Amino acid sequence: MNLLLKEIRDSPMLWLLAAVPVVFAAAILVPEAHTALFILSVLAIVPLAGLLSHATESVAAKTGDAAGGLLNATLGNLTELVIALAALRAGEYTLVKASIAGAIVTNTLFMLGASFLLGGLKYHFQEFNRASARLQSGLLFLATIALLMPSAVAGADSTSAAAAAQKLSLGLAVLLMAGYGLGLLFTLRTHREIFAGADHTQTGEVPWPIGLALATLAGVTVLVALVSEIFVESVQKAAQAFGMTPAFVGFIVVALVGGAAEMASAFSAARKNRLDLSVGIALGSASQIALFVAPVLVLLSYLIGPSPMDLQFWPGAVVMVLLATVTAMFVTNSGRSAWFVGVLALMVYMIFAMTLYVLPPAMR
Amino acid sequence: MNLLLKEIRDSPMLWLLAAVPVVFAAAILVPEAHTALFILSVLAIVPLAGLLSHATESVAAKTGDAAGGLLNATLGNLTELVIALAALRAGEYTLVKASIAGAIVTNTLFMLGASFLLGGLKYHFQEFNRASARLQSGLLFLATIALLMPSAVAGADSTSAAAAAQKLSLGLAVLLMAGYGLGLLFTLRTHREIFAGADHTQTGEVPWPIGLALATLAGVTVLVALVSEIFVESVQKAAQAFGMTPAFVGFIVVALVGGAAEMASAFSAARKNRLDLSVGIALGSASQIALFVAPVLVLLSYLIGPSPMDLQFWPGAVVMVLLATVTAMFVTNSGRSAWFVGVLALMVYMIFAMTLYVLPPAMR
Amino acid sequence: MNLLLKEIRDSPMLWLLAAVPVVFAAAILVPEAHTALFILSVLAIVPLAGLLSHATESVAAKTGDAAGGLLNATLGNLTELVIALAALRAGEYTLVKASIAGAIVTNTLFMLGASFLLGGLKYHFQEFNRASARLQSGLLFLATIALLMPSAVAGADSTSAAAAAQKLSLGLAVLLMAGYGLGLLFTLRTHREIFAGADHTQTGEVPWPIGLALATLAGVTVLVALVSEIFVESVQKAAQAFGMTPAFVGFIVVALVGGAAEMASAFSAARKNRLDLSVGIALGSASQIALFVAPVLVLLSYLIGPSPMDLQFWPGAVVMVLLATVTAMFVTNSGRSAWFVGVLALMVYMIFAMTLYVLPPAMR
Repeated sequence: MNLLLKEIRDSPMLWLLAAVPVVFAAAILVPEAHTALFILSVLAIVPLAGLLSHATESVAAKTGDAAGGLLNATLGNLTELVIALAALRAGEYTLVKASIAGAIVTNTLFMLGASFLLGGLKYHFQEFNRASARLQSGLLFLATIALLMPSAVAGADSTSAAAAAQKLSLGLAVLLMAGYGLGLLFTLRTHREIFAGADHTQTGEVPWPIGLALATLAGVTVLVALVSEIFVESVQKAAQAFGMTPAFVGFIVVALVGGAAEMASAFSAARKNRLDLSVGIALGSASQIALFVAPVLVLLSYLIGPSPMDLQFWPGAVVMVLLATVTAMFVTNSGRSAWFVGVLALMVYMIFAMTLYVLPPAMR
Repeated sequence: MNLLLKEIRDSPMLWLLAAVPVVFAAAILVPEAHTALFILSVLAIVPLAGLLSHATESVAAKTGDAAGGLLNATLGNLTELVIALAALRAGEYTLVKASIAGAIVTNTLFMLGASFLLGGLKYHFQEFNRASARLQSGLLFLATIALLMPSAVAGADSTSAAAAAQKLSLGLAVLLMAGYGLGLLFTLRTHREIFAGADHTQTGEVPWPIGLALATLAGVTVLVALVSEIFVESVQKAAQAFGMTPAFVGFIVVALVGGAAEMASAFSAARKNRLDLSVGIALGSASQIALFVAPVLVLLSYLIGPSPMDLQFWPGAVVMVLLATVTAMFVTNSGRSAWFVGVLALMVYMIFAMTLYVLPPAMR
Repeated sequence: MNLLLKEIRDSPMLWLLAAVPVVFAAAILVPEAHTALFILSVLAIVPLAGLLSHATESVAAKTGDAAGGLLNATLGNLTELVIALAALRAGEYTLVKASIAGAIVTNTLFMLGASFLLGGLKYHFQEFNRASARLQSGLLFLATIALLMPSAVAGADSTSAAAAAQKLSLGLAVLLMAGYGLGLLFTLRTHREIFAGADHTQTGEVPWPIGLALATLAGVTVLVALVSEIFVESVQKAAQAFGMTPAFVGFIVVALVGGAAEMASAFSAARKNRLDLSVGIALGSASQIALFVAPVLVLLSYLIGPSPMDLQFWPGAVVMVLLATVTAMFVTNSGRSAWFVGVLALMVYMIFAMTLYVLPPAMR
């Protein structure tokens, strides 16, 4: 417990934890103050995500290579998963899908691009493990193709097309999870020697004792889930107050909030010239959302959602995911980076953000 | 003749030749038993394709490098060509086009992916000639762009658009064949030193004497043509009986049947760590179908079809061909493979197969 | 002045300057002879573009590295810019957009492909600077994504969609210019050591004295502007007389005329085995048009056009620009070229030209 308090004292971001009780109090006292609730819930989620991430890594560090890798691979995007579950339970499928696509695009372009830029401003050139980047890009490309297909099938807009898209989505969800599992087998077992250096767990932070880590993991997950409920309820109305389109909110705002903790790790690694780690966090997180979180949400929608969710995304979102994946393939292809490579990825992200910002409401 | 009998005795696949007389008898006695005729014709085509392939290679081996390469390059997909001609004569243009697109996708994803996987299960890493893979991918990419354009032009759905698409298809057919010819000049003549190792003819089988090879080539082609007639007539109705969509049959079933012999060679080469050969067969076959077989079918449709055939494909098929080509570029880019690379290509193929399987009938 | 006369005497292309007074006389005497005016204006623009290019490089050579690079980077496509401005003033926005997209595609596929082919017919293999080709491809890819988005937004065809597309285009124009500026900072300043050899200014021609160069720059720009007015007025009607579609004229004819001078330099460098220079001219020019000329035209349309111009292109044009960019990425990826690589790029160009040639008028 002292360790946890020390961690909070040392890390300025964790001072934001003060927002957690405030947001709960506000949700009860002023449930209609959507803009305030939105800002408070964002301020509360960011430090909770940071704690969650540290706790996961601490448990992973104790359980050894393969099990730890597996744990990181499944719980690494717990924050995104919990936020999406809150939206799923509320039947906000458009928001769930926008946040999935947005998280893939944000991790692939913003987290990767900003890592390249921040690292590149300090170092003339930086090297990283190409094999790892290629594998993650390949998994992302697979997921992108899977997201493309249901939109193609459902083009006809008839009832039989919708049923076909739903059946296909279920099959694709199982296939993507199988692909993700085989990818873990490849990177953690059969060919792990070529992925050395891209290991998630080497963040350099001191791991917590296992008891503290497990307790934090459980407690903080509950807190994130509770704050997410408030976040999901307030985000759309707050967005209107700020003049943002729903697409912009789902794609950009939710993705930046959900990924804040990982971004902090990725950027700090880039500044320490450990670009392997930055690339691993950015692309690994994107492929995890595409091949693990999204399928899990489809399967869970049969249990907890008002109706089954399919994988049929807004065509514009699919195009953005596809272009983000191709951009990631392109910028990581040489295994070497300089500041301008980061600028390129960030500019693609800005083009998407600008497009979503001006999108007429009729188009989602 | 003894050699031919010995070949049949040694190769278990050739025992299937017994299906050839049975399918002819069945076609006369029970012409309405579509499902049985379909299964029998598949069983008959597979070993015939194997004989055809061996005969072509034997002739090629005798006629020396350049002429042999040319022969392999034109007759290498004789089975696919003969099946497509049977469909062309029957005016089944949708089936012809589906089988062309399906053969490209199946060779690029399934044959290549399964070769990588089968080889990768035995060897930790396998190397292959990048230059050859890059050239074939480039040819495939060219063909994909050519297939994209008529769909774009004909989008307007008017009579003038259809006429424009027809005129364009004729021009594209000539251009693709010219591209294919120049590609052969490049690989067999001017720059053949960089394509060493990816040679089709080195399958390690004992070549037959030229007389036997030529006689087999002629006789078996006639048999394949006759069985194909039965296959084309029965395939759609049999598919209904199995609950398959016509798109699934054309794309997946016909392509797997037509390419069975080459797949056997490619997989066996991969298991012998001769991945150059596997990649050469898979991508060479795909680019041959796209740049030689498809244009030949367009030109022949003016002579033997009920009306001229254009190159305007169902947009979904064009997207799949494009994604298959990009996948091939991606997985062959490094010149090195491991089992998971094969899994990636196979999973893309499975996504396409699943999509075609659930496709509502209205969408083709 | 003697130098200028000597230049004209030595270079056969410059004899075409005789067409300049003829086209002005003809425009006054026979203003209705559109076909003759079109041919004369083409004959007049080509040598003027050559002089403009030499003058720009002479000024650049005198002003030192960074300033010279900047000058070349902004004035290198002065001919294209002046022609487009003439079309902009006439309110011919479809022609302006077609000429922008056409110039990108023509430089990327025709200029690059013909350089590879011409060089490859003389040398077995040629090497070039991959880093430079990768950077230019990356910039082109960024611009392609920017061109894709307004078409996506404006898909709805409503008034609010058009307003959104216009607002977005303005933002994208600023973003692309910023990207272009940062790209120059990267190549001319912070990382110039890796771009050695791809320098535009080393064309091997003797630079003119600064006074002559500046005077030529000013005088010839005025002449190009005047001839462009005649060209823009006559081109569409002349095209009808030749049986060409407007899309073909804007995309192919205008682009070939506007880029003639640069093509001469790129081809001559390829024949001298200085492929770095050819690739730099071809891709550098394409990215300059996409990231500098196009945004400048959008911004200038607010000042001199009848109404603001957006970046919403005909979807077919966007697809062609995207495929041209991917082709450029693919053919320059290995840093090595042979004749067939050029054939591949030229064939993609021919597919586009054929498509535009048969395009039904209804589709633009």
